[in-house]
Amino acid sequence: MDLKEYLRKRKKIVDEEILKLLPSEPEYGKRLYEAVRYSLTVGGKRLRPILCMAGCEVVGGRFEEAITPACAIEMIHTYSLIHDDLPAMDNDTLRRGAPTTWVKFGEATAILAGDALLNRAFEVLSEWNFDCERKVRVISEISRASGMLGMVLGQQCDIDAEGRSDVSLEELLFIHKHKTGRLITASVVSGGITGGGSEEEIGALRKYGNHIGLAFQITDDVLDVVGDEKKIGKNVGSDFEKGKVTFVTFFGVDGALERAKEEIERAVEVLRIFDVEKREPLEKIARFIVEREY
Amino acid sequence: MDLKEYLRKRKKIVDEEILKLLPSEPEYGKRLYEAVRYSLTVGGKRLRPILCMAGCEVVGGRFEEAITPACAIEMIHTYSLIHDDLPAMDNDTLRRGAPTTWVKFGEATAILAGDALLNRAFEVLSEWNFDCERKVRVISEISRASGMLGMVLGQQCDIDAEGRSDVSLEELLFIHKHKTGRLITASVVSGGITGGGSEEEIGALRKYGNHIGLAFQITDDVLDVVGDEKKIGKNVGSDFEKGKVTFVTFFGVDGALERAKEEIERAVEVLRIFDVEKREPLEKIARFIVEREY
Repeated sequence: MDLKEYLRKRKKIVDEEILKLLPSEPEYGKRLYEAVRYSLTVGGKRLRPILCMAGCEVVGGRFEEAITPACAIEMIHTYSLIHDDLPAMDNDTLRRGAPTTWVKFGEATAILAGDALLNRAFEVLSEWNFDCERKVRVISEISRASGMLGMVLGQQCDIDAEGRSDVSLEELLFIHKHKTGRLITASVVSGGITGGGSEEEIGALRKYGNHIGLAFQITDDVLDVVGDEKKIGKNVGSDFEKGKVTFVTFFGVDGALERAKEEIERAVEVLRIFDVEKREPLEKIARFIVEREY
Repeated sequence: MDLKEYLRKRKKIVDEEILKLLPSEPEYGKRLYEAVRYSLTVGGKRLRPILCMAGCEVVGGRFEEAITPACAIEMIHTYSLIHDDLPAMDNDTLRRGAPTTWVKFGEATAILAGDALLNRAFEVLSEWNFDCERKVRVISEISRASGMLGMVLGQQCDIDAEGRSDVSLEELLFIHKHKTGRLITASVVSGGITGGGSEEEIGALRKYGNHIGLAFQITDDVLDVVGDEKKIGKNVGSDFEKGKVTFVTFFGVDGALERAKEEIERAVEVLRIFDVEKREPLEKIARFIVEREY
């Protein structure tokens, strides 16, 4: 399989389906809808929904079954970016080469657009025409990963670590496990649940998600040092400027990349329980995570 | 029944149960937990969860069954207050006589505490040990009411109306139906679903919720003009200072109160399908809404 073509096709599906999951424009408050739509269409690799669909397929499901959880996860990811970019948080003005939501629509509407997307994710999940027990398990998986035991906690820890030079490796690992790792893991695990995977299979997907999640964040830290601003679509060197402790602080660029590659090898290893052909997309996505330039 | 005693007892149940539904403190990021706990314990009438439990009972259920959706709704209500109070939104420093969450914990943590509570609501709902079909229906009801078709949209409309003197009565009704009404309605309706109410009963509860929701907001507008700051726990006259169009603008204080009372009569009217004894709490809560002083 050609990964580039695969990612392009799957991204296109997500780009189309996610907009279909928005309600029609209301009589008043249209600005909220514009902000939501802007945030959802401004770009992005759609890595999480692609992982969700791939997780569904690897256990024997059809990827179409997983479109609803895939899009719900991307809505949650998008909400987190909108809130992270706010002046009170990371104060970022540029994301994926475009003005951030608060720059374009103001702070108040940006806060609300994030809230709206988080809410909408659970609306579409609860109204998803699917087996009730599996659906509830997916809602539980996703809400845990994104909430105060997951992504939101990670963001708080990230803020707490800001400007501190005494952040330990243990704390750094905790931050990223929660801030990035948990939702990436929930993506592929939700796909596995949707596709009717066995507990063993879902367990393997969880390990896979944890490994690639960590590799993803390490690579992000490396790209912040050596990346090409044009390809990444955001300012390079911002971690260093902010005095942020990252994986590069602990291991240097080469050491960090080495560590990321080790995680990917472990991720590929746990996929062995799956059929060779079926596991190919997840293997290639894992390798892409450390080889990407954006 | 003595309403005051009833409300006191039910509030106590919510006060206790809602904290049990929080996860234990994490190793890092404790500040987020402190902010969440602070926001949940700083007071409040617990009207929505009490309505939820009463909705469950009126259709023949036990109120204990509805504790999880009741608390989830209060979490969502609390998140909305945290975000509404932010400097970029209403910029309020005082709520229920205490510093608002952002004043106490900073803007970033307040944004995250709101996100955490919204997430947590769906976590506890998805993990609620209850009939799957009803549970999903409750999740759908609540998420629709709080999201971009409900409360979040209402807040956007409220912001859009700020400082404008040309707000029509139609627009004002739209704002409050979404900002306040939808979640109040979802509270009593979720209770009715939990208790296994018939479609007719749930329909009646929906009408009841719509009427008391509107009465609640009209009363709020009146209290902003004639209320006692000490009893309300927030600054009085703030709507007028902000040049906000309210129900008092259209009807005056007496006219607005008249309108609120009419809504309450309609609410009481639709309860007639229920047993006289069973409907008593909902009737008395309805009357309390316009007679309250805070």
